Amino acid sequence: MKKARTIIVVFTASLFVSRGSAQSETLADEHRIETRMNQLATYGANTPGVMKRVAFSDGDIQARKYIIGLMQAAGLIVTTDAAGNIFGRKKGRDNSLPYVAFGSHVDAVPNGGIYDGDLGVIGAIECIDMLNQHHIETIHPLEVILFTDEEEGLIGSRAMTGHLSMDELNSTMNCGKTLRQGINDVGGKTDELDKAIIERGSMAAFIELHIEQGNNLETANINIGIVEGIVGMKPYTITINGKANHAGTTPMKQRKDALLTAAKLIIAINEAALSMNGRQVATVGQITVTPGGANVIPGKAVISLDLRDLSAAKMDLLFNIIKQKADSIALLNGTEITFIPKEVKEPVNTDKEIQLMIAKAAKDLNLTAIYLPSGALHDTQDMAKLAPAAMIFVPSKNGISHSPDEYTSPEDMKNGINVLYKTILEADQTFK
Amino acid sequence: MKKARTIIVVFTASLFVSRGSAQSETLADEHRIETRMNQLATYGANTPGVMKRVAFSDGDIQARKYIIGLMQAAGLIVTTDAAGNIFGRKKGRDNSLPYVAFGSHVDAVPNGGIYDGDLGVIGAIECIDMLNQHHIETIHPLEVILFTDEEEGLIGSRAMTGHLSMDELNSTMNCGKTLRQGINDVGGKTDELDKAIIERGSMAAFIELHIEQGNNLETANINIGIVEGIVGMKPYTITINGKANHAGTTPMKQRKDALLTAAKLIIAINEAALSMNGRQVATVGQITVTPGGANVIPGKAVISLDLRDLSAAKMDLLFNIIKQKADSIALLNGTEITFIPKEVKEPVNTDKEIQLMIAKAAKDLNLTAIYLPSGALHDTQDMAKLAPAAMIFVPSKNGISHSPDEYTSPEDMKNGINVLYKTILEADQTFK
Repeated sequence: MKKARTIIVVFTASLFVSRGSAQSETLADEHRIETRMNQLATYGANTPGVMKRVAFSDGDIQARKYIIGLMQAAGLIVTTDAAGNIFGRKKGRDNSLPYVAFGSHVDAVPNGGIYDGDLGVIGAIECIDMLNQHHIETIHPLEVILFTDEEEGLIGSRAMTGHLSMDELNSTMNCGKTLRQGINDVGGKTDELDKAIIERGSMAAFIELHIEQGNNLETANINIGIVEGIVGMKPYTITINGKANHAGTTPMKQRKDALLTAAKLIIAINEAALSMNGRQVATVGQITVTPGGANVIPGKAVISLDLRDLSAAKMDLLFNIIKQKADSIALLNGTEITFIPKEVKEPVNTDKEIQLMIAKAAKDLNLTAIYLPSGALHDTQDMAKLAPAAMIFVPSKNGISHSPDEYTSPEDMKNGINVLYKTILEADQTFK
Repeated sequence: MKKARTIIVVFTASLFVSRGSAQSETLADEHRIETRMNQLATYGANTPGVMKRVAFSDGDIQARKYIIGLMQAAGLIVTTDAAGNIFGRKKGRDNSLPYVAFGSHVDAVPNGGIYDGDLGVIGAIECIDMLNQHHIETIHPLEVILFTDEEEGLIGSRAMTGHLSMDELNSTMNCGKTLRQGINDVGGKTDELDKAIIERGSMAAFIELHIEQGNNLETANINIGIVEGIVGMKPYTITINGKANHAGTTPMKQRKDALLTAAKLIIAINEAALSMNGRQVATVGQITVTPGGANVIPGKAVISLDLRDLSAAKMDLLFNIIKQKADSIALLNGTEITFIPKEVKEPVNTDKEIQLMIAKAAKDLNLTAIYLPSGALHDTQDMAKLAPAAMIFVPSKNGISHSPDEYTSPEDMKNGINVLYKTILEADQTFK
């Protein structure tokens, strides 16, 4: 039964392609993509209460071995840098030229899905297989890149730009190991971390295919997202100080309840983000209260604030609205609200020339496309410091990501890979 | 300098007494009370990050030894029951009569104050000393009771009514020991826990002197609180289910943020409690969200709800208002809110006859008094199952309790003890 159903799905999808895309351009092998995505999904597979394939876990190490195997089967020359990033090189006609690079990551968040990162790696290898199949030799050498530990702070790509600090190597990661141990376990050499730095000029271009992780594409019924930039992030830790007191004996009107103030602030943050036009987002994902007894009025609450937008000025404006609301809430409630800024990530614009190449590739393939920002951080933002860089998004079902419910259809995966393939060829022709 | 200042304070307080109270009735020894309260406060004294005198800790054990010493010095016959409760007996004229009991506890909440409980124990012993000083022999025998572990669920007094379950003995208490270990460490015998049960009829009356732990007395500038009852408690665990999603990529309008729903509910709970006349209180003291990452929209939030009032019907009404508000919040936010009731504590009325004795004692002492409920739980509510029982409250500065800032003036302590003394004598005359 299960097999029969799979066949039907494939058949339906093929029919759709023959209508939606230019038939002669059907390049990526949908069956091969699906098979490889499913195989990759078995490494670090989720069981209840067990984290899925966090970086440096057994699952991550198995997934990396599988990818190395696919790279070698595709004829790539595989190397691992000092940060554990894996490179698969395909020679070009002129190997003195900088390389055109593309790829993503295979590590996942705890209890995550099987498309985030994976698609960009399997898609990159699929492009190599397609080149091989069509006996195409590019002008530039190509590099398929698997980045180390994207999910815990773009570890691998930051090492490539020299922005991974030695201090961070002592951090304990989700897998339970220190970052140092983790990197060395996947073949990196933390003693020679500087060797992972890529000189500007050695990379001609970088392109990453990724699932959208939002639902802009699905909602608008669009095939391809041309990522115009990766949003910046202004994170804060907010502390609310009230007065802890006995829950039974303190009259309602005489309370300085820090959690009540926090609740008002959380609503104000939400309303502030909704009050402006645009795609800015504001999230409170963490909260702790003390003393934390069911029978004690909270004296203190600490919440996180995560503001994101493609415009730094807009984030500042949004923060100012929130800050103003916080001041009046604190005044009304007799509590104290303090904002402590954390490390700001500036918005990153992707390369306009590659954006146009992606748009043209989509058009040639009869696919619809829109420009949109990436709300999530990606290795591409580090690559943008080294070379012209851009991203291709494909739809995520219901916009769900970082969840076992993450899903992108085989059809959408195939479309994305075809666009990546054409963009690589165009970049190869265009960049020096 | 310090000494000189102390003298001035005592002098001022004495002046005030001579105006406010009937001078001839000045019975309790203010200096002795202060000295003993200060000495008791040294056991398990708070240092930064160290819990203060939680039950069965070294500090609690030292405090118990100190109290036993005071009891013995006052000529009481000291025994410890199977639950670790300490009894100090003073014989009466007819020792076949049930005893008149009074007392409180010396264990404290983590990081608590030095008046909650302590005053009722020091005050009870002061009454014995006063009787000795005046060579008064009561008709009934008297028992000063120090209850075991009041703060972690009225442990000692529940053992006396047979409501401490064997299961609970395995619980780990704030001191780090199991309850079993704790009780045995203070001289109890958990193997014979049934022996701690007090038969109805063996106790003639019970009276507890305690700090108010609220600010009704202070606000109204009243000396004595006549506790008309101990509020009941309806506790709930509330779970809010939304949808965890990426904080960067999920548009504001498409979120099902469990914490945002929780925030709205916390405000609704507060507004519901404020919307009714009376002394009812509603508190959310605990909150946890999952996944709990700063960059993830919370998919789930769990909060505590603690409703208290002297009327069970009023608690039901308040809960219904909250439940109705919760339903409409959930509907508007596309989230799900579930209420799980926890163990209900029914309100307890104190004995009306003893209430009148307290009122008369206050009047005779030229002290002002009002009737009020106790918002906190007390051992008295268990004693009310065994005999006519009541409580005397004295003012708490700023209503603060369960905090190192807890404070009751020597004058107020003295007033409370004098009222307790007169009430004991009246009960001795009245009850059989």
